[in-house]
Amino acid sequence: MKASPSVDSALRHVHIVGTGLIGASIGLALRERGRHVTLEDPSPTALAMARDLGAGEPLLAAQFEEAHDIATHEVWQPSLVVVAVPPDVAAAVVLAQLRRWPNAVVTDVASVKAAVLDALEQSGCGPAELSRYVGSHPMAGRERSGAIGARSDLFEGRPWVVSAAPRSDPSARRTVELLAKTLDAVVWRMAAEDHDEAVAVVSHVPQVAASLVASRLRDLSAESVSLAGQGLRDVTRIAASDPVLWTQILAGNAGAVREVLEQVAADLSVVLDALRSLEHDPAAAVGARAMLARVIADGNAGHLRIPGKHGGGATLYAVVQVLVPDSPGELARLFNAVGAGGVNIEDLQIEHEYGRLAGIAELTVLPQAAQELRTILRAGDWTVYD
Amino acid sequence: MKASPSVDSALRHVHIVGTGLIGASIGLALRERGRHVTLEDPSPTALAMARDLGAGEPLLAAQFEEAHDIATHEVWQPSLVVVAVPPDVAAAVVLAQLRRWPNAVVTDVASVKAAVLDALEQSGCGPAELSRYVGSHPMAGRERSGAIGARSDLFEGRPWVVSAAPRSDPSARRTVELLAKTLDAVVWRMAAEDHDEAVAVVSHVPQVAASLVASRLRDLSAESVSLAGQGLRDVTRIAASDPVLWTQILAGNAGAVREVLEQVAADLSVVLDALRSLEHDPAAAVGARAMLARVIADGNAGHLRIPGKHGGGATLYAVVQVLVPDSPGELARLFNAVGAGGVNIEDLQIEHEYGRLAGIAELTVLPQAAQELRTILRAGDWTVYD
Repeated sequence: MKASPSVDSALRHVHIVGTGLIGASIGLALRERGRHVTLEDPSPTALAMARDLGAGEPLLAAQFEEAHDIATHEVWQPSLVVVAVPPDVAAAVVLAQLRRWPNAVVTDVASVKAAVLDALEQSGCGPAELSRYVGSHPMAGRERSGAIGARSDLFEGRPWVVSAAPRSDPSARRTVELLAKTLDAVVWRMAAEDHDEAVAVVSHVPQVAASLVASRLRDLSAESVSLAGQGLRDVTRIAASDPVLWTQILAGNAGAVREVLEQVAADLSVVLDALRSLEHDPAAAVGARAMLARVIADGNAGHLRIPGKHGGGATLYAVVQVLVPDSPGELARLFNAVGAGGVNIEDLQIEHEYGRLAGIAELTVLPQAAQELRTILRAGDWTVYD
Repeated sequence: MKASPSVDSALRHVHIVGTGLIGASIGLALRERGRHVTLEDPSPTALAMARDLGAGEPLLAAQFEEAHDIATHEVWQPSLVVVAVPPDVAAAVVLAQLRRWPNAVVTDVASVKAAVLDALEQSGCGPAELSRYVGSHPMAGRERSGAIGARSDLFEGRPWVVSAAPRSDPSARRTVELLAKTLDAVVWRMAAEDHDEAVAVVSHVPQVAASLVASRLRDLSAESVSLAGQGLRDVTRIAASDPVLWTQILAGNAGAVREVLEQVAADLSVVLDALRSLEHDPAAAVGARAMLARVIADGNAGHLRIPGKHGGGATLYAVVQVLVPDSPGELARLFNAVGAGGVNIEDLQIEHEYGRLAGIAELTVLPQAAQELRTILRAGDWTVYD
C-alpha cells in the first residue's frame, strides 16, 4: 500500500467485476453515496442492465489497456476492486485484478472463503500481491438473481464477514471493512475456516436438505402435491436455487459440509430405526416414541438459537392472556387497569382474528409479576386465562 | 342413518370435541354461518377461551347425561360430531362419540388417517357404528396453536381431505363433505392410505428435515448463528413444532414416512460420497460435481410441482425485459407502445427497487411473440435486454 487510506481515498473509485445481484447492488449503494464506480462483466447484457439501473459506468477493454499503460494516472486506478463472480472463478479473477491494478485493494464476495484463499496461494500469487487481498462475504441475497434484482439497501443491517488472511495488510482489511460499513452492513471478522464451518450449518446444509425434500415431490401425483401447505413451501423455497452456483459452493466447502451432513445422516438413521420399530410393533415401541420426541425437541432447541423478532429470550417471561371484547374503548380500559395496578408490562400483543367476537390480549411480564397481574385484572372483572 | 340429510339437518347441530386451533376455528366458522355449535374439551381454560371467542357453547357433563337419557330429544342430539383431538387418542374419542350419540355422523380431523381407522376397527367398533364414521383432514394450520389462534377463515380455499372407509355410509360422507364445503374448503376424496402417503411427502418428511437441520444449530457459536439468513429461517420455521404432537403424527404414519425417509437417506449418501471425493481430490472429481448438480436440479424439478402464484406453467412463456425510466408517464408510454404493436401480453411485472435510477418491466408473452415485441419496442427507442 502506498498510503494509509482515509475514508475518502479508500473508496475513491471502486471497480466491480461481475454485475449480478451482489455486484450491481454494491454499485447502486456506492453510487447513491456519491462514489465513483466502474463495472465489468463478461455478459454485455448484464453489464448494460447494471449501468442502466445506475450501478456505475462500464469500464471498456480499451480503457483497461490505457489504464494499464498509465498506471500512475489516478483516474483509472481503482482504490478498491470488488470481485463478485461465481465461486469457482473467484480466485483466478482476484489474481488477475491484483496484477492489473498494482495499488488497489482487492476483495471477493464468494460464499466460500478458505477455498478461494487456497487457490490464490497455489496459483503463484506473491506475498506483496496477497497483502492487498482480503476475502469477504456479505450475508445478503434475494430470490431474484442478476442485476434486475439489485437494490441499494440489500446490505443494510446484514452481517458482512471480512476474512483477512495472515498475509493481508491491516490497511487493506480496513478498506474492505469500510466498504461494508459504508453500505450499512455489520462487519464480522472471521477466519476463513470459521466462516466456512458456520455457513456449512446455516446455509449449505439447509440448501441440501431443501433440495432433498423437494426432490421427493417429483414422482407424487398432482392430487397429492396439491395438499402442500405453508410448511412445505417454506422448507423447499430455496430448492429453486441455481444448480451451477450451488455445485460450486458445495464443492468449495466440501469438508465442512460433509462433516455437518454426516451428523444429519446419523440423526436420520435414528429416526429410521424408530419408525421401523413402530411399524413392526406400534404398541411395544415406547423407546421409539422417545427417540422421535427427542429429535423434534432438539430441533426446537436449535430453532430457538436463531436471532429473530422474539428471540429465545421470550421464554424468560410469563404471558398473561386477557379477553378483550370487540367494542370501542375496551383496549383503553385494559391499559388503564394495567397501569393503575403498577405492574410493568414488557410486551403486549393482540390476536385479532377474522370472525371472532373478541380478541385476546397477551401481556408479557416477569414471571414473578404474572399472578399479581391476574389478580388485579380479575378484581376489575376482566376474563383472564390461566 | 335415520334419514337422508338435507343441507339444514346434516349440520343442524355440530358438536366439537377438542377446542384447539382446528376445533375452535371450525366452531367460529359454523357460528358465523348461524349453526348451533356445542363444545367439549378436557381443559376448562381451553374450553372457556373458545366459548369467549364465539366458537360455541360448552356442553357440560350434566347435559351429556341428560342427552344420553333422552336420546330422542332433537335438541341434544348433534347431527355431526367433529373430533379435533391429538392423533393418539382420536380413535378412542371417535368410538366414545359414536356410542354416545347413536344417530350422529362422527368425523375426526387427525393428520393421519389409516392408523385412526385401524385402531377403530380393532377396538370392537361394530359395522353399524363404523357406517357413521368418516375420517377427514383439513389441510390448514397456523404457527399459533390453541383456541387463541383460531379464525373462521382458516379453511377458505384449503384442501380438506375426506377419507370414507369401505364401511362408511354414503350419506355420512356427504355430511362431512358438506361441513368442508360450508367452511369454504375444497373437498378431496382420498383413501386413508393414499392420504397418508401424500402427507408423508408434503408434511411429515419436511418436518423431520426441518428438525434435523435446526438441531445442528444447537452447538454453533452465537457469532456463527448470527450469520443466518432468510433461507435458514424458512427451512427451519416448522422446527418450532410441538414434539408431543409430532411424535404422535410420525408414529401414526410410521410406514409411509419411513419409506420416503429411506429415499432421502439414499440421496443424502450420494451427496456425502460426492463431497468426500471432492475433499480428497478437488481437481479430479468431475463426476462428483455432476452428482451434486443433479441433486440440486432434482430439487428444482420437485419444487416446480408445488402449486403457486406463478406455478410451473410460467416456463412455457418468454419474458421480455424493458428499461422504464423513473419519470412520470413512462409506464403509460410503454403500455401504448405495446398496445399499438398488437402483441398479446400474458403478464406484466415491474421490479421497482430502492436506490435505482430506473425500473425494469418484464413482459410475459408467448415464445413466438418475443422477438417481434423486442423489435417493436426497439423501433420506439426503448431499451430492451436480450
